[in-house]
Amino acid sequence: MNFRSDNNAAIAPEILRAIVDVNVAASARAYGEDTWSRKLDEEFSALFERDVRVFTVASGTAANAIALAGVAPPWGGVFCHREAHIERDECGAVEFYSGGAKLSLVDGKDAKLTPDGLNAAIANNGGDIHSPQLAAVSISQATERGTIYTPDEVAALGAVAQANGISFHVDGARFANAVAALGCAPADVTWRAGVDLLSFGATKNGAMAAEAIVVFNPKVAEVIERRRKRGGHLLCKGRYPAAQLLAYVEGGLWLRLARRANELASRLGRPAATYLSAPVQTNQVFIKPGEANLAKLRSAGVEFYDWGAKGSGEARFVVSWNQSEADVEAMRDLLASLR
Amino acid sequence: MNFRSDNNAAIAPEILRAIVDVNVAASARAYGEDTWSRKLDEEFSALFERDVRVFTVASGTAANAIALAGVAPPWGGVFCHREAHIERDECGAVEFYSGGAKLSLVDGKDAKLTPDGLNAAIANNGGDIHSPQLAAVSISQATERGTIYTPDEVAALGAVAQANGISFHVDGARFANAVAALGCAPADVTWRAGVDLLSFGATKNGAMAAEAIVVFNPKVAEVIERRRKRGGHLLCKGRYPAAQLLAYVEGGLWLRLARRANELASRLGRPAATYLSAPVQTNQVFIKPGEANLAKLRSAGVEFYDWGAKGSGEARFVVSWNQSEADVEAMRDLLASLR
Amino acid sequence: MNFRSDNNAAIAPEILRAIVDVNVAASARAYGEDTWSRKLDEEFSALFERDVRVFTVASGTAANAIALAGVAPPWGGVFCHREAHIERDECGAVEFYSGGAKLSLVDGKDAKLTPDGLNAAIANNGGDIHSPQLAAVSISQATERGTIYTPDEVAALGAVAQANGISFHVDGARFANAVAALGCAPADVTWRAGVDLLSFGATKNGAMAAEAIVVFNPKVAEVIERRRKRGGHLLCKGRYPAAQLLAYVEGGLWLRLARRANELASRLGRPAATYLSAPVQTNQVFIKPGEANLAKLRSAGVEFYDWGAKGSGEARFVVSWNQSEADVEAMRDLLASLR
Amino acid sequence: MNFRSDNNAAIAPEILRAIVDVNVAASARAYGEDTWSRKLDEEFSALFERDVRVFTVASGTAANAIALAGVAPPWGGVFCHREAHIERDECGAVEFYSGGAKLSLVDGKDAKLTPDGLNAAIANNGGDIHSPQLAAVSISQATERGTIYTPDEVAALGAVAQANGISFHVDGARFANAVAALGCAPADVTWRAGVDLLSFGATKNGAMAAEAIVVFNPKVAEVIERRRKRGGHLLCKGRYPAAQLLAYVEGGLWLRLARRANELASRLGRPAATYLSAPVQTNQVFIKPGEANLAKLRSAGVEFYDWGAKGSGEARFVVSWNQSEADVEAMRDLLASLR
Repeated sequence: MNFRSDNNAAIAPEILRAIVDVNVAASARAYGEDTWSRKLDEEFSALFERDVRVFTVASGTAANAIALAGVAPPWGGVFCHREAHIERDECGAVEFYSGGAKLSLVDGKDAKLTPDGLNAAIANNGGDIHSPQLAAVSISQATERGTIYTPDEVAALGAVAQANGISFHVDGARFANAVAALGCAPADVTWRAGVDLLSFGATKNGAMAAEAIVVFNPKVAEVIERRRKRGGHLLCKGRYPAAQLLAYVEGGLWLRLARRANELASRLGRPAATYLSAPVQTNQVFIKPGEANLAKLRSAGVEFYDWGAKGSGEARFVVSWNQSEADVEAMRDLLASLR
Repeated sequence: MNFRSDNNAAIAPEILRAIVDVNVAASARAYGEDTWSRKLDEEFSALFERDVRVFTVASGTAANAIALAGVAPPWGGVFCHREAHIERDECGAVEFYSGGAKLSLVDGKDAKLTPDGLNAAIANNGGDIHSPQLAAVSISQATERGTIYTPDEVAALGAVAQANGISFHVDGARFANAVAALGCAPADVTWRAGVDLLSFGATKNGAMAAEAIVVFNPKVAEVIERRRKRGGHLLCKGRYPAAQLLAYVEGGLWLRLARRANELASRLGRPAATYLSAPVQTNQVFIKPGEANLAKLRSAGVEFYDWGAKGSGEARFVVSWNQSEADVEAMRDLLASLR
Repeated sequence: MNFRSDNNAAIAPEILRAIVDVNVAASARAYGEDTWSRKLDEEFSALFERDVRVFTVASGTAANAIALAGVAPPWGGVFCHREAHIERDECGAVEFYSGGAKLSLVDGKDAKLTPDGLNAAIANNGGDIHSPQLAAVSISQATERGTIYTPDEVAALGAVAQANGISFHVDGARFANAVAALGCAPADVTWRAGVDLLSFGATKNGAMAAEAIVVFNPKVAEVIERRRKRGGHLLCKGRYPAAQLLAYVEGGLWLRLARRANELASRLGRPAATYLSAPVQTNQVFIKPGEANLAKLRSAGVEFYDWGAKGSGEARFVVSWNQSEADVEAMRDLLASLR
Repeated sequence: MNFRSDNNAAIAPEILRAIVDVNVAASARAYGEDTWSRKLDEEFSALFERDVRVFTVASGTAANAIALAGVAPPWGGVFCHREAHIERDECGAVEFYSGGAKLSLVDGKDAKLTPDGLNAAIANNGGDIHSPQLAAVSISQATERGTIYTPDEVAALGAVAQANGISFHVDGARFANAVAALGCAPADVTWRAGVDLLSFGATKNGAMAAEAIVVFNPKVAEVIERRRKRGGHLLCKGRYPAAQLLAYVEGGLWLRLARRANELASRLGRPAATYLSAPVQTNQVFIKPGEANLAKLRSAGVEFYDWGAKGSGEARFVVSWNQSEADVEAMRDLLASLR
C-alpha cells in the first residue's frame, strides 16, 4: 500500500500510448519545431480560453524556478507560504535560476495564503534600495496540504498582486486535482483571477515527465525560453513531452484521472475524521493520530511520509490516479481501527 | 531525407519497450530510489570496469553543465575547443550552472584539442588572483566535426590535465559513435586516460531523453547531486530514464546502433571525398562544396545544416541510428552528382 | 541632532591622520602587497591572540556576503535572526555572493538567537537532497537592537554550530561597541567561542570605509580571496584601508571610540526607561513611545529612523563616536519630556 | 624606479585635501544622500554636456562588472578585445555580476577593436536560442596597450553596436589619459559616439579609491543601483568617494594629472623607439627588447611587469601622475643604453 506520493505512480495508458504513437515518425525536427510541440500552444490556448504560450520542462522544480525567474530579478522578493514546495522541497531552485531572489515566507492556515497575510508581508518589506524589490507571489493549487483556493480566493490574491505591481505565479503540480475538485474552468483560477504564470503539472497525475510553464503574460516568454535552454530543459526530442501533454488534456483525461484520485482520497477522509489535520479537498490526506498509531499503520504495510516536525505524530497519505480500490479499502479499515 | 541531426530520430524499439516494461509496476519509489535507478551504478560500473556513479539528466546540455560545475568554481577557467558544443550551442549553460566560470577557447584541427594547444592556453593564463583559476579541460568525443580521439590522444590530454591539477571532462553526446569507431573499451578513452567526468549521451543514438553524468572521481558526486536537484533534473519518476539507459547498454545495443550510423555515414564519405572538410570517422559528414551545390542538395529535398561562417558553402550531414538505406543511397547519388 | 545612524559620522582624526601619513610614500605595491596591508595579518593576529587572516573590503555588506559565501554553497542554508542586517538591509547580497544560498530566519528576543531557537530551526530542515544543506549560522554582535551576546552565549551557539557541522559567522559591524560593553577579549566572543569568521567593522565607529573579514578557519581564506577579487573589493591601493584599520586598533582606539558612544547612549536610556523596547547595552536606543511622541521629537529637530512595522510608534536612535555632548543632553531632555 | 602601474601611486594632494575638507561635517546622511554625492550628477552632467547619472564604486573591476551587468542578461554575449582588462585581469567579475554572461574575444592591433573585427565576431554568433544573446561591446579607452580611439573610431564602433541593437560600454580606467591625449571633449568619445555606459576611473590618476559608472542611458540606472547595493559598493559614507571625484574633475585636475603622465611617458618612447611594441599614446610604454635587456633594466632597479607570453621579452612601463622627473630621466638613459 504505497501512499507515499502520486509521483510514485506509473504512466497512464493513454499517455504511454501517445508516446508510442509519435514514435512512428522516423524523424521529427528538434527543439520544439515538431508538429506536436507546435500544437501545444494551440491546445492549451483552447483549454485556457485565451492565447497562452507553453514551455515544457522535465520537472515541477524546473517549471517553478524558471517561471519565477522570469518575473523576479536577482534582487527580487517572492512571497510564498512557509510550507510551499519552492521553499521546502526544491533545494533552492528558485534562488538558483533567478540568481539569488529571496523567498519571503508567509503563514496561513491549511498551507494557504490570505490577502491579509500577503499584505502584511508586503508591508514588512523595507521598500528601499536595501530591501528586496517586491517581485512576485506564488501559491500552490492544490496546496502542500491538499487544500484548494476558490476562484474568488485566487482573485483576491491577484488583486493584492496587481495593487502592488508584482507578478502572480501558481505552482500547479497538482493543478488537475484542484480544478477537478473546484469544477471550474482552468481560466477561473488563473488569468481571470490575475495569474501571470502557471506551472501546469502532469507528472503526478499520469505523465512520465512532463510539466508545462503556461505563460499568460506574453512579455515573459522570451526570458523563460532562454532560461529553459540554459537550464537544460529545452529537450531536443520535443515530441515526447508534447505528446504526453496533448494526451493528458485530450478529452479531459487530466480531470478524469484527478477526479478518481480525489474521490478515493475522500473515502479515506471519513474514517480518519477525528485525526484530520487538514480538510480533504483533493487527493491528499493529512492526519495526526500520534506516533503509536502511525507505527501501527506502518507495520500493516502502509508506505507514507511523516509530516511536520519530527515526532509530531502527523503523516501524509497521497492517493494516486491509479491507486487500487483494494488499497483504499484496506487503508480505510486501518484508519477506522486507529484509536 | 533528413540529415539535420541524429537528435531528430525516433526512439529505438528496444528502448521504447523498456519504458513500456517498467511501466507495469503500479508504483515505484521516486527520486532514484527505484529498482532500475539503483541498478544503473552497477551496470555502468560493469561497462566501465570500475566503480562509477551515474546521474541521469534530461539533456546533454544539463549533463555537460552540471558535470563541469562540479569541478569548476565560479572563478574557474574551463578549456575547450573553439567549436565545442558547450561554447557554441548551450546558451551559456556552463556559465549558468557554475555561477560564472569562463570558457577559454583553444584552436585545433578537426575540432580536436592537442596537448600543445592546451599547454599554450594554460600558459596564457595569468596564474594569479586576477585570472581565472585553472579548473578543467573539456573535450567532445566524438567531436563537433565527427572526429575522434584515440585512447593515446585522450591520455596525452589527461596527462596535461593532471600535470596542471585540473579536471578532465568528456562531452560524450556521441560517445557511442566514438567508441564504436575506435573499437576500444569505454574505459580506454575515459578513466584509464585520466578522465574524471563523462557526459554519456543516449538521446542522439536512440533514447527518448536520457543522458548520464558518469563520475569517475567520487569526490565530485555530492555537488553534482545537489546541482542536479537545483537544476530540476532529479526526476521523480526515475525509473523511466533509468530503463532507457539500461536498455541502451544491455547487450551492446548502444554500439550496434552507433555502428550502423557510422557505417552508413562512411558510405556518404566516399562520393563526397573531394568536398570533405573533415575526415568521416563517425556518423557525421562535413563537406564544403560551395553554396551552389548546397542549394542543389536542398532543392532535391535534403535537409541539413549549413556550417561554419555564413555563406562559406559548408554543410553538415548527420546520419541517425535509424536512417533508411534508401536515404543513404539517394544521398550518395546526389553527392556523386555534385560538381 | 542626527541620531539616524553611526554611519553618518565623520572619520576619527587618528584615522584620517593615518591616511595622510601613508600617502607620503610616492608609490606602494598594489593589491595588498604594500607594507601596511601586510602588517594587517600580524596586528590582527595579536589582537585576537592567534593566527588570523584579514581581508579588507569597502563595506559591511561586502564583508558579510563574502564571508558567508566562503562557507555556504549555493544550496546552503544560513540561519540568522529575523531582524538580521543580512536579511533586512543588504538587498540579497548573501544570496548574490553565494550563488543562491537561503537565509533561514529564526526568532529571538532582542534580536538575539538562542541555542534552542537555532536547534529548532535546524530540526525544521528536511535534511535530504530536497532541502538546503545546513551551512552556517550568523549572528550580529552587537545586534540590530543594540544588544550583546556574552562569551557564554556565543559559545553556546558555537556548540550548536559545531554539533551540526556548520560554520559560525559574526556580523561585527558594531563589534567594537559590543566588546567595549562586554569588557572581554575579542577572542572570547570569537574563536574561543567557536566562531569561524568575523565581519569586523570600523566604518561605523570612525573609519572612512574599512571593514575586515577576519578568518579564524584558514581553509576558508582562498575562496574569500577569490570572491573579494570578483566582487571588486580587492582595492589596488590597499594601503589606505589597511592604514585605517591599523590606526583603528592601535592603542585601543576602536574601544575608546566605542566606549564613548556606548556611555552617551546609556545616558539616553535612563530618561527613556518607560519607553525602551530593548535594553540599552551599546550605542543604540530603541523606544516605543507612540507616533505622537515621535512626531514631537521630529519637530524638535531630531533625526532618527522609525523602527518595526509601519505606524508602530517605535524608533531607533544611534549615538555616534563623535556625537556631541550637547546633542545628548538636549536629547535627554526631550526624552524626559515625553508622555 | 617603480613603473609597475599607476595604481601604485599616492593620492594627489588636491584630492586628499578634499577628503579632509568634507570630514569637517560631524555628520552627513548615508548612502549617497549627502550634499557631495548629490552634486556628482550635476558636475558630471556639466562635464559630459548632457544629463548623466553617476554611481561611485570602490574599484574599476566593480565599475566594469556592474555596468556590463546592467546591459547584459545572464545569457548575454559581450564582445571585447582579447587583451581587455575585463577578460584578463578581473577574475571573472563580469561573469559574476551578470550571472554568467559570456565574453566573446575579438582580435585587433594594439589592443583595439575595429568595426570589421566586431562585425565578424557578431556574424560568428549563431543568433538563435542556442547561442548567447548579443548584448554589448566593451572597449578600453585608453586600451590595455596605452593606445587610444579617436572620436571617429569610437563612433564607428558605436554605429556597429547600434546597428545590432547592443549596448556600448567603455572601460575608462585611464579615461583621463585618453582624453588628455585626444584633446577632445569627453562627450566626443562617449555618448556622441554612441556610448551608453562609461567606467570613469580616477584611482589610477590620483584618487584613493573612486571610480564612477557614468550612465548615459537612463533606463539602465535602476538595475545598476541594485547591483551596486548587492555587490557591497553602495558605501554608507558616500561623501568621501564623492569628494574625491568632485576634486578630480574640478578645474580640470584630472586632465592636468593625466597630461603630465602622458608627457613623461612620451619622453621614454623616444629612446625606446626600436623596441616599442605599441605606439606610445598615453602613459604606458610597451617594449620588446628581449629577456636579456629586461634583466638589465631590472638589475638597475627598475620595477615593471613582463608582458605577453612568458619569456617573450616584452614588458610594460606605466608612468604615474606623480612619477618623478628623476625617475624618467634615469629610465630614459637606461632605455637608450639597451642594445
